[in-house]
Amino acid sequence: MNYELYYWPTIQGRGEFVRLALEEAGAAYRDIARERGKGAGVGALMRMLNDRHAERPPFAPPFLKAGRLVIGQTANILQFLGPRHGLVPKDHGGRLFTHQLQLTITDFVAETHDTHHPVASGLYYEDQKKEARRRAADFRKNRIPKFLGYFEHVLAKNARGDRHLLGAKLTYADLSVFQIMAGLQYAFPRTMARAARQHPRLARLHSSVQQRPRLAAYLGSARRIPFNEDGIFRHYPELDAP
Amino acid sequence: MNYELYYWPTIQGRGEFVRLALEEAGAAYRDIARERGKGAGVGALMRMLNDRHAERPPFAPPFLKAGRLVIGQTANILQFLGPRHGLVPKDHGGRLFTHQLQLTITDFVAETHDTHHPVASGLYYEDQKKEARRRAADFRKNRIPKFLGYFEHVLAKNARGDRHLLGAKLTYADLSVFQIMAGLQYAFPRTMARAARQHPRLARLHSSVQQRPRLAAYLGSARRIPFNEDGIFRHYPELDAP
Repeated sequence: MNYELYYWPTIQGRGEFVRLALEEAGAAYRDIARERGKGAGVGALMRMLNDRHAERPPFAPPFLKAGRLVIGQTANILQFLGPRHGLVPKDHGGRLFTHQLQLTITDFVAETHDTHHPVASGLYYEDQKKEARRRAADFRKNRIPKFLGYFEHVLAKNARGDRHLLGAKLTYADLSVFQIMAGLQYAFPRTMARAARQHPRLARLHSSVQQRPRLAAYLGSARRIPFNEDGIFRHYPELDAP
Repeated sequence: MNYELYYWPTIQGRGEFVRLALEEAGAAYRDIARERGKGAGVGALMRMLNDRHAERPPFAPPFLKAGRLVIGQTANILQFLGPRHGLVPKDHGGRLFTHQLQLTITDFVAETHDTHHPVASGLYYEDQKKEARRRAADFRKNRIPKFLGYFEHVLAKNARGDRHLLGAKLTYADLSVFQIMAGLQYAFPRTMARAARQHPRLARLHSSVQQRPRLAAYLGSARRIPFNEDGIFRHYPELDAP
């Protein structure tokens, strides 16, 4: 299957969780909005998004075209890809728990985004800086420890070893936790310097995922868009710990 | 199967999306934290939540015990229940789209919550009223129209008729959209009086779901907790349209 990923071309954003799964799977895919030419580019993304004839339109990017299916919502795309590429366990309970973890990551991502956009995603950061400072302070003090503490605990409790969130093999949830750790370290380096020491299993998962051959090749390539201040994980020093 | 639902006993909250599916299915379930006695009440919920021995702990309520499985995250629970109770289509594409809609509802619910808690869920509303006014204004002006417009459009595009979001039969996503409409009308009555007129298919879905025999019986019973100012949908007149 040759997948087509539709996502904004200049940010990692939510699309990156899908890119990581496709890259680790070694799947053939086109990153449509990053290509040029006919049927590609942001224009192609916008045409799909605004297609008034589509019976089952996506609400927002990312969405993945797989044959005749167009699948939206990051966690839903990952759930679709998981069984096809060995990125989930085979048993029903394991698949449910992988998805449950992914939805918890979804919540964490939304909260991370709102540290710099606590009032409105349609306003500039500059227009909500004051509110962002308050929200980011709470995020650093309460939310980062709560979420990281949870995932650290899940790693510790895995009966098959603490190198993965569940089971003995990598899942898409492990890939997404890697991305969370990488993003938070970019956005909140001072906060995360301490947090990484307090969450050794998460720090090790972060490091082991980025050393996987396919991931290492991807992360070192031009396909990996650098973190920047248009994405979810933004480095605004005033929002980090003093 | 006799389900056990674990959710806060005094609010509809996210647990309500699960209650609606269980009620429409006519499923046998216990709402553990609302019962009294041994193994019940909030104490039982907290013991499950804080059980340091659980291999696969939930991050937060709601979670559902189904035999040996403990399933967390609202959309994940609904996805689990759907096929068992005829609340999703049988085909893979239909199930993916139902879940995609549910995850869009999840996003909408989180944004609704943040209208009264834009800074921190751990702070009182009174400590973030000023930020809440700004966020709610944007929510009314931009986000309600965007989400409702999307679901109205999905209803209109359903090849099997505009009485359901997809297919010819009720899905758990229809139930959740009913809950969104009910909740928004409670929280933002002035905004929604206008919005209901502008989204006639959603208004009809809202009305037809609440007339389904099992749902009508549930909504008229003491099992349906009234909306209140501790839940997601709170009626703060200062956050509604003037």
